[in-house]
Parts: sequence; C-alpha cells; structure tokens
Amino acid sequence: MAKQISDLKLGILGGGQLGRMLIQEAINYNLTTLILDPDTDAPCKHLANYFECGSITDFDTVYNFGKKADIITIEIEKVNIEALEQLEKEGKLVYPQSRVIRLIQDKGVQKQFFKENNIPTAPFQLVNTKEDMRNSYIPFPYILKQRKDGYDGKGVMKINNIEDIDNAFDAPCLIEELVDFEKEIAVIVSRNPNGEMKTFPMVEMEFNAEANLVEFLISPSTYPESIQERAEVIAKNIATSLNITGLLAVEMFVTKTGEILVNELAPRPHNSGHQTIEGNYVSQFNQHLRAIFNLPLGDTRATNNAVMINLLGEKNHTGVAKYKGLEKVMAIDGVYVHLYGKKYTKPFRKMGHITIVDQNREKAIEKANYIKETLKVIS
Amino acid sequence: MAKQISDLKLGILGGGQLGRMLIQEAINYNLTTLILDPDTDAPCKHLANYFECGSITDFDTVYNFGKKADIITIEIEKVNIEALEQLEKEGKLVYPQSRVIRLIQDKGVQKQFFKENNIPTAPFQLVNTKEDMRNSYIPFPYILKQRKDGYDGKGVMKINNIEDIDNAFDAPCLIEELVDFEKEIAVIVSRNPNGEMKTFPMVEMEFNAEANLVEFLISPSTYPESIQERAEVIAKNIATSLNITGLLAVEMFVTKTGEILVNELAPRPHNSGHQTIEGNYVSQFNQHLRAIFNLPLGDTRATNNAVMINLLGEKNHTGVAKYKGLEKVMAIDGVYVHLYGKKYTKPFRKMGHITIVDQNREKAIEKANYIKETLKVIS
Repeated sequence: MAKQISDLKLGILGGGQLGRMLIQEAINYNLTTLILDPDTDAPCKHLANYFECGSITDFDTVYNFGKKADIITIEIEKVNIEALEQLEKEGKLVYPQSRVIRLIQDKGVQKQFFKENNIPTAPFQLVNTKEDMRNSYIPFPYILKQRKDGYDGKGVMKINNIEDIDNAFDAPCLIEELVDFEKEIAVIVSRNPNGEMKTFPMVEMEFNAEANLVEFLISPSTYPESIQERAEVIAKNIATSLNITGLLAVEMFVTKTGEILVNELAPRPHNSGHQTIEGNYVSQFNQHLRAIFNLPLGDTRATNNAVMINLLGEKNHTGVAKYKGLEKVMAIDGVYVHLYGKKYTKPFRKMGHITIVDQNREKAIEKANYIKETLKVIS
Repeated sequence: MAKQISDLKLGILGGGQLGRMLIQEAINYNLTTLILDPDTDAPCKHLANYFECGSITDFDTVYNFGKKADIITIEIEKVNIEALEQLEKEGKLVYPQSRVIRLIQDKGVQKQFFKENNIPTAPFQLVNTKEDMRNSYIPFPYILKQRKDGYDGKGVMKINNIEDIDNAFDAPCLIEELVDFEKEIAVIVSRNPNGEMKTFPMVEMEFNAEANLVEFLISPSTYPESIQERAEVIAKNIATSLNITGLLAVEMFVTKTGEILVNELAPRPHNSGHQTIEGNYVSQFNQHLRAIFNLPLGDTRATNNAVMINLLGEKNHTGVAKYKGLEKVMAIDGVYVHLYGKKYTKPFRKMGHITIVDQNREKAIEKANYIKETLKVIS
C-alpha cells in the first residue's frame, strides 16, 4: 500500500492561530505535525509533535526544518522562499508552491499578476520613493501599501494629500486608487494536485477601521446569485492561473455599481474562513489538508448562517489576557469560542474568535452584536 | 476577576481517544491539559501540555498527578478511587465525583442503585461463585457480567445452559435476565455544579455481536416522541439521584413491548456521543468541559442526521495500522474521519470512528453501509 496521510509528517512554517486550528484538524488524520516559529510561547507549541523555536525567514533554519518533513506548508507568507525552493529541488512537497508564495509575498507582483491575467482589480502604480509618490497620476486620496511584510492591517495607510506623503512608508510600495466599495467580500478556493477545485460560498466582511482588521464576517452572503457566481469564478480563475495546490483566500470589493475588484490574496487558511469550522460541511483547515495531501476535496456548502467575530485585545490593555464576559457569551445558544492560546494581550492583537450559528440570519447578527459589546479581552 | 477556564489546569486520568477528543475541544478554551496514562504511546501523548506515563490505578501515582491540576476528570472508570477521595478532601475538584465513579465502577452496585431509585432495569442477581450461578433463579439463557473492570465488550458473556457455567468468569459477577430488546438506545445527560442539566437527543445503536461493541449509531432517533421523552426523563432522574457533575451516558434497551430498561452508565464522554461533534450544536466533549468548569451548558439539539461507525481493527490483522479505502471514503460528501492516533491495530481494537451527516436520513445510512464495506483497518 502506498504511503498514507497517517504515515506522513507535515511541517508548518509558523505556529500561530492558523497553525493551531490546522493541528486541531490534523489530529483527526493521525498526522505528525512539526512547527517552526520564532516565539517560544507560540500557540502551537504544546500541540505539535515537534516544535522548533527558530526563524522562519532564515535560510538554514527553514531548510533544516523542512528536511524533517514530508510535506511543508505555511500559515504566514513571510517565510524564506529560497529554502523552500531548495527543498522542492530536493524532492520535498511544498504546498503552496514556493513560486506562489514568492508572487503573493510582494503585493506589487501580485497586482501585476492580476493585470497580466485580466483579473479585475483597482488601478495601481508601483513606487519606490516619496518622489515617485508625489509624481503619481493616481488622485488623492489613495491607498498606500508596502509591497512586502504587511499583515493584520499593518503596512497599509491612506494618503489624503501631498503633505501626508512626508509620513508615508519609506519602502517599495504600491499606490492604489481608493475604491468606493459597498462591501468587502471573500471567496476561499481550494485545489489539489489532481486539479480538483472547490470554492467555499462567498462571505461578507465588516472592517474595524481603526485596527484595519476584519471585525465581523457573515456567511453565506445575501448578494444576488449572479454576483456570488462571478466572485467564485474570479477566485477559480486565479487559482488556475497560479496553478496553486492548497487553499487560496481571495479578498475582493463589491463596488457600488456592482463591479467586483480583487483586493489581495492569501495562499493558506485565512481569517475569512474561520466560520467554516462550524458553519460549513468541511472546514477550511480540513480542506487545506485534503488539498495538500492530494485527497478528495470536501463539501464546502454552508450548513447554517454563521457570523464570525474576531476577538481583539482592548485598547489600553497590555498584559496577561483575561476574557471578560466569557460566561455570559457561552450562555447563548450556537456560540463557539476559539481562544488562540496567547498569554499576553495588547491593543488589537488577535486573541481569538467567536462563531455564532443560527438558522435565523438576523438573530445570528443580533447575537454577534451583543457578543461584541459583552466579551472583552483585557489585562 | 475570578479564575477563568483559561487559567486552569485540567488533569485527565487516561489518555486514549476520549481524552484526545476532549483535548481537541479544550484547545478552544486555552485550557492547560495534563494526562496520566500507562501507555508511553497513548493517543494524547503529544497533545497534552503535560503527559505522564504512569498507572491510573495506583494510589500514589494518581494522587501526585492530581496535585498538579485544578480540576480532575476521567476518560475511563477504572482509576484509583482512594486517591481521588484524598484529593477531594484536600480541596481539589474531581468531576465526576469519586463517589459516582466508585458506584459506577461496580456493575453490581450500579444495579442496586437502579433498584433503590426505581430506575427501570432488567431483573438481576449478584453472584460470587459458580455455585451461586448454578443455584440462580434467573432462567437460561442469561447474561453474565463481571462486576468490575469490563470495558469495550469485555467482561460480558451469554450463559446458555448449565454446562456454560464451567467456562464462566471466576470473579464477582451479576446475572441479568436476557432482555428481548428491539433496540439499544442511549441518552447523554450533562449537569454542572449549579444544577443546570441538559440531555442530548436520544440515539439508536446497532451492535456487532461478535465484538460486542457499538458498530453503528444513528442520531436522532425516529422512535415516537413519547419514548424519547421517557428515555430523557430516566437519564435526568439518574443524573439527579447521583448528583453528578459532568457527563453521564445512559445506555438503555427498548423492549419489543415499548418498555425502557437501563443497561449501564458511563460518567464521562462516551462512544454513543461521538456523532455530536458534527451532528449537534454542542459536542459532548465541549459539554463535558462546560459542565465540569461550571459554565452554562450548550445547545444539545441535532443540526442534522448523523450516523457514526466505529472503525475497528480487522480480524486477522495485528501490527502497524493501515487504513484501506480512506481516500474513497473521503470522496463522499458529509463524511468526517476521526483516527485515534494508535500506531498498532489488533482485531476489534477501536482505531477511530467515522461520522456521516446528511439532510436525508436514508442517504446517511446508505453512505454508512458503503463505508463499513469500504474502509478497513489492516496491518
């Protein structure tokens, strides 16, 4: 009999909450998991079969770690690509592939990829210096994004006028026309090496403007079928063009005129898919494992209305985390608590998430609003 | 703020599949988990924050282990009760309480408890010797059960005639009238220290006669409401009489005349509740944590039809386990694989379970039958 999933070792670069939820699923398949993370207290530390504290951006560390695994995946894009390329050359399976991570790591290259592949996206310009910004043809106000290393709302700012440029990032950036969007949406697509491909139903997101983080996610969307289908087709086209193996989260805008524009990509489990754990037949984490181990993909249909809330550290609270209101929240039917095992909270740190499922969509939203007011991460 | 679930250490006696699935849920609450198990390769080994290889029936080992935890629970009844009593005296929380485990450990005492509390159960007699058996007033054929240490179908035999007694167990036993039952059913009830109590919907079970193990479980039951309600009332009455904190699984028979008779109890997560992970709003594992940490109990309603199949080691296969047909099974919609992390298989060993959910009950059963034929644990 050929090697089976239960015989294989999965190496994961990054040991945060995404790795943690991936391990919760990997347990069901007897997978041996190896984690590399620079934080000695990473959320995955006690859950992996093997935990290594080390840099995920250092060639030697990633290369030597990867040698111990059969399949290597990521839970964050900021990893050493050269080491992954070397591991691929030596026959290791790296999913998503190193070239996909390389492309997505750089938001400038990502944007050019959209352009070359006729993927609808907001007009943009690549800039290297503040001089370039001042000379841009894109009108104020616009969005400025660092090409590399942005995450969780960091590395993105709004430039309202020429004076703002003085305080702009001093790094290779891209300027993007401000999209007058109605809603931010996302579609997660999965693809296995056999080419089998499935999308999760489109979800709607609401952002916390101050933290620039998803605060609220609703699944499934109530947009007309035509828009949902278009969003799914776009996600599938990107996955096919990238020839990716694994999950791909595609964040998009729906403009007020009903246009869909792709914002950005993440080649891994994503915040916009957390509600799939309880709200869909297969979860994004289970699906990612199916995809990278070349197993049949699971049924992505929603089983219920689901609302997901990110549990962010309160402003003005830094220190050992306490979860105020947890008991009240657990008294509500259909509420699922996911704490990420982070000992310390700080303002806007992602400390966990809550999913609410309810057969009545309005009730689910009502519960979510109550929970948002009630549950606080303090120190 | 008072101590929260995320600050507490949960000690679990036993590190098998029940402990494993309990840890999968405990992760969501940042619980620190400590496991004591005699097997160096126990399914929980790599998942607990602290794993100790040691005897769960030895006073000193259990006592010293328990001192390290804030709350102590079990995943198997065969544990050292005296150590738990001592820990309770010293102020540790032991849930289920040691006196409940003591009562349930002995099937004879369990039966007497049923009798004293007017819980319907099959007529029985306690016997100590083969002489007692020969002199019993209970007619052949009858069921002979060891009072202690039976598990997973072991410690139970059918005595057809006086000759069979020569090969009977040589230990304190109980003789039970053979029940001409139509179906075996189960209700899991949970109760927290506040006295809040909830039952999961009644489920129906089908046994593998050869292994004397649950092979097939269907949720929810299609018995008339009146029977389901009666079964739930019986389960609640037992939980109240026991004044138990935690989960209590109540296995019962429905006789051909519609009578309900209690078979036996398990004061912990139980095989008859595995389908709750995907088939109910709250899973039995989540509910057990809620109960023992005195948190509000979750919504026990079924979200869908669910069928659970135990994945038992094939006859004539002993050695490193292989899962034949896994890929075929994963290609079916609504199928959830749970492997228990056991390296070695042997005939009838519980190696995992599969849950099938489907909006159409007949389809779920059909899929389950296909899976039973297709998926085999071999060496």
